[in-house]
Amino acid sequence: MRRYRKFDYPVEDVRRFLEPGPIVLVTSAWKDQRNVMTLGWHMVLAFTPSRVATMISSGNHSFELIRRSGECVINVPTAAMLDTVVGIGNSSGAAIDKFEHFGLDTVAAGAVAAPLLAQCHASFECRLADRSQVSRHGMFIWEVVKAHVARTPKVPRTVHYRGDGQFMLSGDEVSRRRLFKPEML
Amino acid sequence: MRRYRKFDYPVEDVRRFLEPGPIVLVTSAWKDQRNVMTLGWHMVLAFTPSRVATMISSGNHSFELIRRSGECVINVPTAAMLDTVVGIGNSSGAAIDKFEHFGLDTVAAGAVAAPLLAQCHASFECRLADRSQVSRHGMFIWEVVKAHVARTPKVPRTVHYRGDGQFMLSGDEVSRRRLFKPEML
Repeated sequence: MRRYRKFDYPVEDVRRFLEPGPIVLVTSAWKDQRNVMTLGWHMVLAFTPSRVATMISSGNHSFELIRRSGECVINVPTAAMLDTVVGIGNSSGAAIDKFEHFGLDTVAAGAVAAPLLAQCHASFECRLADRSQVSRHGMFIWEVVKAHVARTPKVPRTVHYRGDGQFMLSGDEVSRRRLFKPEML
Repeated sequence: MRRYRKFDYPVEDVRRFLEPGPIVLVTSAWKDQRNVMTLGWHMVLAFTPSRVATMISSGNHSFELIRRSGECVINVPTAAMLDTVVGIGNSSGAAIDKFEHFGLDTVAAGAVAAPLLAQCHASFECRLADRSQVSRHGMFIWEVVKAHVARTPKVPRTVHYRGDGQFMLSGDEVSRRRLFKPEML
């Protein structure tokens, strides 16, 4: 699988990749453990500071690594990784080393211990901003502290989950800039 | 624009339409006021009860209608509505009646005062389940109490926002059911 060389990217612009709703791969690290999970339940919350929320069930092996470290990296995979995305979601880090099993190459992050995934188009380093909703809703509210994005292609072909083993792949890009008021862009 | 005849749909399955991350049109009603807004910041939180979260800035005219009524309808528009979606997002209910201005036909909901949009493929009636994060994050946590979905097409062509006037349209549907453990479906 292709490895993407990624470049620093403005954290306030991560919505360009997250708001369309792709499945993401969340990496985590705590002491000598690390893991990666497939996640579809996330949303953008704010531009500045750059905030996103994720829902992560406590049944996931990653849950405690993420909760204890208060850090993660949200990686955006492409359609070329679809079978790997499914494999990661259908296995547990309690049983296997998913990085090794799925041949994932990692790159050290700049601000957090969790690694970036080389095969993903974009990687967003996150620190926990608000843990108040973790026990109630499984909701982690993150500040994106550093963003890394590949320059080509400009827009990745992403994978979006419908449940029941069915995925939607991202399709055509269309602009409607001409219909926007300047202050709405 | 086509009007969709919609049928009762299991509330625990609304993720099939929301998890892929489409732009939605949120309708609201409070006393003699009603409004509709374009929204891209939402996530699924739970299947049973069926819960979703939305981030709605207090700068929106809809904010007070939604906050005071504790209700809304999340409607899923199709690509045929793209220009209308942009128009709704670039205008304010404080200045115009958006339903009239954009020729939106409404249908009475079953459990909430906000209307369903006839031109949308799916409509999810929501009641506020947790208002504790409204002032802090603009986050409303909803229970989906009634769902209405068209039967054809089975999957709508949806609109996904990247910011900056750029949209992604949903593309191919692919199944990877064969790669899933039964308990993960």
